[in-house]
Amino acid sequence: MSDKKVLKLGIPKGSLQDATIALFERAGWRIYASGRSYFPTIDDTEIECMLVRAQEMARYVEQGHLDAGLTGHDWVLENQTDVEYVTSLTYSKASRQKVKWVLAVPEDSPFHKPEDLAGMTIATELVEFTKRYFAGKNIPVKVEFSWGATEVKPPMLADAIVEVTETGSSLRANRLRIIETLMESETQFIANKDSYADAWKKEKIDSLALMLNGAIAAQGQVGLMLNVGKANLDAVLGVLPALNSPTVSQLSDPEWVALNTILEESLVRDVIPKLKAAGATGIVEYPLSKVVL
Amino acid sequence: MSDKKVLKLGIPKGSLQDATIALFERAGWRIYASGRSYFPTIDDTEIECMLVRAQEMARYVEQGHLDAGLTGHDWVLENQTDVEYVTSLTYSKASRQKVKWVLAVPEDSPFHKPEDLAGMTIATELVEFTKRYFAGKNIPVKVEFSWGATEVKPPMLADAIVEVTETGSSLRANRLRIIETLMESETQFIANKDSYADAWKKEKIDSLALMLNGAIAAQGQVGLMLNVGKANLDAVLGVLPALNSPTVSQLSDPEWVALNTILEESLVRDVIPKLKAAGATGIVEYPLSKVVL
Amino acid sequence: MSDKKVLKLGIPKGSLQDATIALFERAGWRIYASGRSYFPTIDDTEIECMLVRAQEMARYVEQGHLDAGLTGHDWVLENQTDVEYVTSLTYSKASRQKVKWVLAVPEDSPFHKPEDLAGMTIATELVEFTKRYFAGKNIPVKVEFSWGATEVKPPMLADAIVEVTETGSSLRANRLRIIETLMESETQFIANKDSYADAWKKEKIDSLALMLNGAIAAQGQVGLMLNVGKANLDAVLGVLPALNSPTVSQLSDPEWVALNTILEESLVRDVIPKLKAAGATGIVEYPLSKVVL
Amino acid sequence: MSDKKVLKLGIPKGSLQDATIALFERAGWRIYASGRSYFPTIDDTEIECMLVRAQEMARYVEQGHLDAGLTGHDWVLENQTDVEYVTSLTYSKASRQKVKWVLAVPEDSPFHKPEDLAGMTIATELVEFTKRYFAGKNIPVKVEFSWGATEVKPPMLADAIVEVTETGSSLRANRLRIIETLMESETQFIANKDSYADAWKKEKIDSLALMLNGAIAAQGQVGLMLNVGKANLDAVLGVLPALNSPTVSQLSDPEWVALNTILEESLVRDVIPKLKAAGATGIVEYPLSKVVL
Amino acid sequence: MSDKKVLKLGIPKGSLQDATIALFERAGWRIYASGRSYFPTIDDTEIECMLVRAQEMARYVEQGHLDAGLTGHDWVLENQTDVEYVTSLTYSKASRQKVKWVLAVPEDSPFHKPEDLAGMTIATELVEFTKRYFAGKNIPVKVEFSWGATEVKPPMLADAIVEVTETGSSLRANRLRIIETLMESETQFIANKDSYADAWKKEKIDSLALMLNGAIAAQGQVGLMLNVGKANLDAVLGVLPALNSPTVSQLSDPEWVALNTILEESLVRDVIPKLKAAGATGIVEYPLSKVVL
Amino acid sequence: MSDKKVLKLGIPKGSLQDATIALFERAGWRIYASGRSYFPTIDDTEIECMLVRAQEMARYVEQGHLDAGLTGHDWVLENQTDVEYVTSLTYSKASRQKVKWVLAVPEDSPFHKPEDLAGMTIATELVEFTKRYFAGKNIPVKVEFSWGATEVKPPMLADAIVEVTETGSSLRANRLRIIETLMESETQFIANKDSYADAWKKEKIDSLALMLNGAIAAQGQVGLMLNVGKANLDAVLGVLPALNSPTVSQLSDPEWVALNTILEESLVRDVIPKLKAAGATGIVEYPLSKVVL
Repeated sequence: MSDKKVLKLGIPKGSLQDATIALFERAGWRIYASGRSYFPTIDDTEIECMLVRAQEMARYVEQGHLDAGLTGHDWVLENQTDVEYVTSLTYSKASRQKVKWVLAVPEDSPFHKPEDLAGMTIATELVEFTKRYFAGKNIPVKVEFSWGATEVKPPMLADAIVEVTETGSSLRANRLRIIETLMESETQFIANKDSYADAWKKEKIDSLALMLNGAIAAQGQVGLMLNVGKANLDAVLGVLPALNSPTVSQLSDPEWVALNTILEESLVRDVIPKLKAAGATGIVEYPLSKVVL
Repeated sequence: MSDKKVLKLGIPKGSLQDATIALFERAGWRIYASGRSYFPTIDDTEIECMLVRAQEMARYVEQGHLDAGLTGHDWVLENQTDVEYVTSLTYSKASRQKVKWVLAVPEDSPFHKPEDLAGMTIATELVEFTKRYFAGKNIPVKVEFSWGATEVKPPMLADAIVEVTETGSSLRANRLRIIETLMESETQFIANKDSYADAWKKEKIDSLALMLNGAIAAQGQVGLMLNVGKANLDAVLGVLPALNSPTVSQLSDPEWVALNTILEESLVRDVIPKLKAAGATGIVEYPLSKVVL
Repeated sequence: MSDKKVLKLGIPKGSLQDATIALFERAGWRIYASGRSYFPTIDDTEIECMLVRAQEMARYVEQGHLDAGLTGHDWVLENQTDVEYVTSLTYSKASRQKVKWVLAVPEDSPFHKPEDLAGMTIATELVEFTKRYFAGKNIPVKVEFSWGATEVKPPMLADAIVEVTETGSSLRANRLRIIETLMESETQFIANKDSYADAWKKEKIDSLALMLNGAIAAQGQVGLMLNVGKANLDAVLGVLPALNSPTVSQLSDPEWVALNTILEESLVRDVIPKLKAAGATGIVEYPLSKVVL
Repeated sequence: MSDKKVLKLGIPKGSLQDATIALFERAGWRIYASGRSYFPTIDDTEIECMLVRAQEMARYVEQGHLDAGLTGHDWVLENQTDVEYVTSLTYSKASRQKVKWVLAVPEDSPFHKPEDLAGMTIATELVEFTKRYFAGKNIPVKVEFSWGATEVKPPMLADAIVEVTETGSSLRANRLRIIETLMESETQFIANKDSYADAWKKEKIDSLALMLNGAIAAQGQVGLMLNVGKANLDAVLGVLPALNSPTVSQLSDPEWVALNTILEESLVRDVIPKLKAAGATGIVEYPLSKVVL
Repeated sequence: MSDKKVLKLGIPKGSLQDATIALFERAGWRIYASGRSYFPTIDDTEIECMLVRAQEMARYVEQGHLDAGLTGHDWVLENQTDVEYVTSLTYSKASRQKVKWVLAVPEDSPFHKPEDLAGMTIATELVEFTKRYFAGKNIPVKVEFSWGATEVKPPMLADAIVEVTETGSSLRANRLRIIETLMESETQFIANKDSYADAWKKEKIDSLALMLNGAIAAQGQVGLMLNVGKANLDAVLGVLPALNSPTVSQLSDPEWVALNTILEESLVRDVIPKLKAAGATGIVEYPLSKVVL
Repeated sequence: MSDKKVLKLGIPKGSLQDATIALFERAGWRIYASGRSYFPTIDDTEIECMLVRAQEMARYVEQGHLDAGLTGHDWVLENQTDVEYVTSLTYSKASRQKVKWVLAVPEDSPFHKPEDLAGMTIATELVEFTKRYFAGKNIPVKVEFSWGATEVKPPMLADAIVEVTETGSSLRANRLRIIETLMESETQFIANKDSYADAWKKEKIDSLALMLNGAIAAQGQVGLMLNVGKANLDAVLGVLPALNSPTVSQLSDPEWVALNTILEESLVRDVIPKLKAAGATGIVEYPLSKVVL
């Protein structure tokens, strides 16, 4: 390696890859993942990217092969790695909530709590975490690694499973019943502890975190501009959510002011009719690319 | 049904479906139409959606199976239904104009006005409306229901047709000549009369109408910001269309003001060169998501 | 031709076609290129479009068959045409740089400068330019027209090639070594000299050039709004690039001002962390459609 | 029309179109249906094709606009047309069985036989047939034309439906219960009665029928060749289905014969192991294009 | 090069490429053209392939860079190359006929024979051939190289064109009129004269030609097997085309024989009904992969 | 379970799934794998299918959850399962050879034999087999489970890998060097030992094996028919491979015989030219669907 400062960054390969690259683009970095290469290029000479499976990310960050990376909290726990949590990243309010790892059994099975599974076989992709969970409760079970399609295994190939779920619909479709939630998980931006102690790397990592969060925040929010006569200003301000105070600027006409504010996108359909009723005119919604409050 | 207030809303199935769902998304409601289901979900617990063919929408709204729905004015007339017209919706200035239902005959046929068709066979999808039209003129014709491909039927399978057209290009391609326009039609947001008399449903329907129109208005318009010295302000204002007066705000430099206005997108290419010639600087166009004036 | 003023405009057929049509749309003109037709329609009754190969564009503009057109500087030179250069157009900062025409030979060949190629065979699509280049240096070579795949010809089918390249990666993949750059080229908006001397056509051409450049400029830039207390104003202004002075407007609170400015998109990821550190709040980035400074 | 003999043939537009064109190709006629044209070309100068909706086919064949056509038996009945049934065509044993038109009601409805529906509303695409069916049983019902998605209408938009089904899976998915089968239907090759009385047209129609059936027969059958010693011949013949007696030819070795036969494809997996057990050798299965026994 | 015998074979790059590779596969050679490489692999260690534009093929075969290759007769003539014609290849009877190079002018132009074009401009991709053609007739014309879309150039950009056509439909669509056919052309398998004088290369080239033609012949033909009683044998034989005499073999039953023959696929639909009428039974058509008579 | 005899059959989920289903279809069984279901239907009431990952197949067959299944020999070894090997299946001669599991290191690494890796980290998907391999050689190594992309890990994330390869091209592309082949593997049809001891299940399994092999054999072979005069018979027979003796049948003309034989497809291109040279005529190649010799 040369003297040049470089941050080695792990991008999750697989289901999160495209969403991650899209998030970086919105945040200001273009990553080019061409075909089969696992070393995508990025338009920042201070960063080197590598595609790594989410399951292995924490291990390689802990060992220092990577300075930082994105992975799920679940896989940090599975690997019991000692890393720095820089920030959590909920990619998009609309499409991405926390996932849950749950213990599920066949709908018509006699199992209703973890203790009922003593002596049974449990299939899961999260073997170590599951073993520790049951060991912590002193329940003897056999935990088998599942290469996929875990939710179709009970009752023929396993008695119960520990599986990830967002809405539970796949479990229901396979006629499984959740009897316990073992863990909630969301995407984490993690760093190697030594790397994060290095001043240059810490600043680079923190800037990335700031911009990624700025891009995420912009997705669920919009800009709103409107004009209002001073007589109606209080009524209009009363309609707006208290969180973000709007920017009020004086217009040439001394009786009128312009408001410019940021609003949760999901509130717009309720707020605009009320703004209009309260006397606002020239109401305009415009899209945002980044929001850093 | 529980006490919970719910608006039953009909979404047109078929050619308008995707455009309607896209319009609702721009207006602030996400509709998820998954695969084969005719009951798409919507991210508003106060609304229940059903996909219904545009041809049948007015019938079911009139009968009260649906509180409101979107359909063409043509099909309201065909079914002679008694419904409330909430608002017309021209989805997008660029791609969507009023359609016309026209009476068309082969280019080289001897028919030149409706009366010439006495005794002839007319194929159409709009059977009842067509029958009433000719009955009103006391012209005896045979009207046959056409299951599709109406414009290829003359002269072999029919003497004339009553068919919908936007630009007439499909009629010309089939060597047909328009001899009369029977009706113009555009998309209507209609409501059941009893539903619209209910205060809660009326407010919900009106909010939907306001936001749908706000989203439609934003499609053909853009935001424009510019700076101008006070000496040039009148010249610059003279270039802008009179319709929407711009927001003028004072800059720190007392000799300069900032203008912020909304403009028809189609005018921008003519207006910007004139603004620059009139002394405006820092001219910036930005996209809008909703416009409620 | 009628008295109606019409500008005959050549659109480059082929690899640049889609990007050109997209650029015109961003600039305010919609071009509809349907299937096989070489005469796309445009939503401006004062313009008639024709799709013409970039290689032939300059020839037809020079002869007056077209009033104006877009083509590469390289093909203007190849054809040695006498046309007016209105403006160069770098479609997008991100994806489009100047291309180079280079003289390349096999990696392991004994040729290291143009003079080494005396008596050799050179394959190229740019036959006339290449002949003049070597004639100007008094180096006798055989120049053969290449119908394509020029870079795979050495050493079996040619001794050297003159080929266009952006990044050199295709040349490297074919194990070729560049020994000289013969020309740099970018897209030019060119006009027939007589047409450009006509007042009406000149104004039309110049408006097109202004709007095309306005659309190009907007692609690499974004809008930035923020609030800042007057105490921090100088620090915040110090962070912003000097080029474009921001619009500063007074807020209702006399201690605060709002800043609105335009920024190179590639700088945002560095500037926002510094703005926040300097005391800015409510930092919002929004997209731009056109920028005419 | 000239003196040239031409058969006007209706090809069903819509869901059967591609399968029909594929069937004709296997039978020896190539039909080219290009884009939007309703008059596909065919490589037989004695035939002119027209794409016609299956629902309208029988009407136009009866009226003599077409000499012959393919449509479902159901639509012949719906239109009560008087046409010649040339042959039924079950396109492929694997994918195409007779369809049924059934009377279906919501699973949890109190309706269990047609009589229970007195006074109720029935939605169907097959309005006339349904009206006659209930009139024949003296059960008063309201029959409404359904533009599509009939199976989602009960119970909200209709009390019962008359709908087409192959396997019943779509009805089950919509929680409907079949209470009566009104009709079975399969594809028919029909002819106008006058056309079929014309000697030239009859021969042309019969040749088409022969070859279409020859192509259909070939789809579910395969050729089988094998060698067998005369000592084992009876045992081997005993394994083969009795229907088609095999061609037995003498080999050079007087102790051996070769068998060549046609077999239902679905039987092959059972027959080959038995043939081998019975002493056959060199068993070879080969595909067939047409079978006319 | 080692001592190993290798045939350097040119495969036409571009519109013929996929059809050529498919033809070689049917003939028994698999060619793998991966992505961007111009040197496809082939499953025959005695052959090395290179993708070469059809326009350049004859030049490189003549110069000996390639031993053999496939290209159109037109480009052999354009380049005036001296090569061995091994065989012509009409890829498939159905989709591939001889193409024609024609002289075409605008429908409403005053030009009706080549002589009318004296002094005019002619655009063509086949510059040298066209120049020689007009020189041979002592008609002075200006011939310009056309980079493509030649048929849209008249009358605006050229007075006439020399262009390739199969059916003339593209010319008609551009309102052009053919006034002379200059040349007919089909695909040729050509060889370098020295290579063809080498015994090993000649045998390799001839085997390729035999198998390519065997695969082409199989495409338009089918196998036909049937049984017939000896009493009907003459009648049945009378129905079969005289060209290929069938194989007649004796069945076990002395009164019956089996016929096995090859037939033009396009005749089958006429022959089978006649065979059945003449007393044949068990008529079976089966597909062929190669036919070498 | 009812008394009905049923064979529980595991189909490999993933990369082999489509090829397996295609193979079963060629063998005579249609498997319908719809969307997300892991229990595809099959047109044989005596079989129940389940999709199971190849990695887990042997485990579930050994435990008796499945009677039989298809998986790689590698995964049988990895799991050290005790199952019956019914037959190996090389899906297709053309596209499917035995795969190898190899030990690979970076090209420029100092490792040249397994022993050199003492103390090093080895990444692999085949953890248990690899551990046993090195334990058997008394070489202490750290074996880490790799979730994928194993070949990009050296040298950054591992010192060596044990990875599967067909042609080695992926290893070369990642600049890795093979230092040892640990195992060869191909697809196996395996059965539970108890199931295979059951007479009914054994017969069912053996029939499946016979037909699967019959379908595989047909893929690489073709049928060949030809006529030959008795004078040339020996010469023609001399050209044919000795393996399969052809069926010789007497033609009506006593001087001629017909030959019908099976041939390796890859030999055809060499054999046909020789057959023709030896006096054969009417040489026809036809495709085969199954071959059971």
